[in-house]
Amino acid sequence: MQLLQTPPAETKGFRLNHTMLRVRDARASVQFYTEVLGMRLIDEEDMGDFTLYFLGFPHEGDVAGAMPTHREGVLELTHNHGTESDAAFAGYASGNSDPGRGFGHLAVVVPDIEAACARFETLGVQWKKRLTDGKMKNIAFLLDPDGYWIEVVPDRLKL
Amino acid sequence: MQLLQTPPAETKGFRLNHTMLRVRDARASVQFYTEVLGMRLIDEEDMGDFTLYFLGFPHEGDVAGAMPTHREGVLELTHNHGTESDAAFAGYASGNSDPGRGFGHLAVVVPDIEAACARFETLGVQWKKRLTDGKMKNIAFLLDPDGYWIEVVPDRLKL
Repeated sequence: MQLLQTPPAETKGFRLNHTMLRVRDARASVQFYTEVLGMRLIDEEDMGDFTLYFLGFPHEGDVAGAMPTHREGVLELTHNHGTESDAAFAGYASGNSDPGRGFGHLAVVVPDIEAACARFETLGVQWKKRLTDGKMKNIAFLLDPDGYWIEVVPDRLKL
Repeated sequence: MQLLQTPPAETKGFRLNHTMLRVRDARASVQFYTEVLGMRLIDEEDMGDFTLYFLGFPHEGDVAGAMPTHREGVLELTHNHGTESDAAFAGYASGNSDPGRGFGHLAVVVPDIEAACARFETLGVQWKKRLTDGKMKNIAFLLDPDGYWIEVVPDRLKL
């Protein structure tokens, strides 16, 4: 298909702001995305039965407590209160097996994938695929606390 | 939880590059994301049994045919060949109903939400929630060709 076509003028200024994932335990997820992956928690919004957490890697213009609509690369985590302590809660679907296949993964690009993966190993992350597993030796996949797949991609990957 | 904490130094340069969704019909999906939403198709990679499509709103540094690892806000669509003409294919899960609940939506921020939604109406999009539906009158939800939810968010939304 044709690449880099000029978009309709009416879409000027549109941006892909965020991806939303539901999480069972907000504290565990925010800890993973901030301490392991290096995002910052930008905003937390208590909506009553659920709380929204907006995270992203550091960007100009991020303001503590303000929904970061000015930028791309935001992750919105939705925590429905109580799931973290509900033994009957079956967990969320990662999107990568039936039934429920659809969403695949988030991908984080890192400047030095060997160093990044060595650090993840030290931190005791759950792996879906280490760098050394499988056919593609230049990408890895972590699992977040809910089992969502996080692809780790080197700068300037060529497919 | 604490907002805007300083991330670990080892994560410097990390970025949330893309979100991957599987799509039934690549042509229909690329048409929707480019012609309706205004993204550009940056790269298309034939992997044999499947093809990857990398899309994003226009960014500096996008190069036709190169995987856009330099930036955030990328959408990767995975098309497993044949689903578009397989009458027995049940379709993908949107992530918003059981079984398969997990992923929620992508969100596009737009400078003028009234104008954006009026244009979407003219283009005949499928709505999950028009601006005028439900309690939140300042956001809308479209459905993409697979039924994934696309939130339409105004600039500077306050929750």
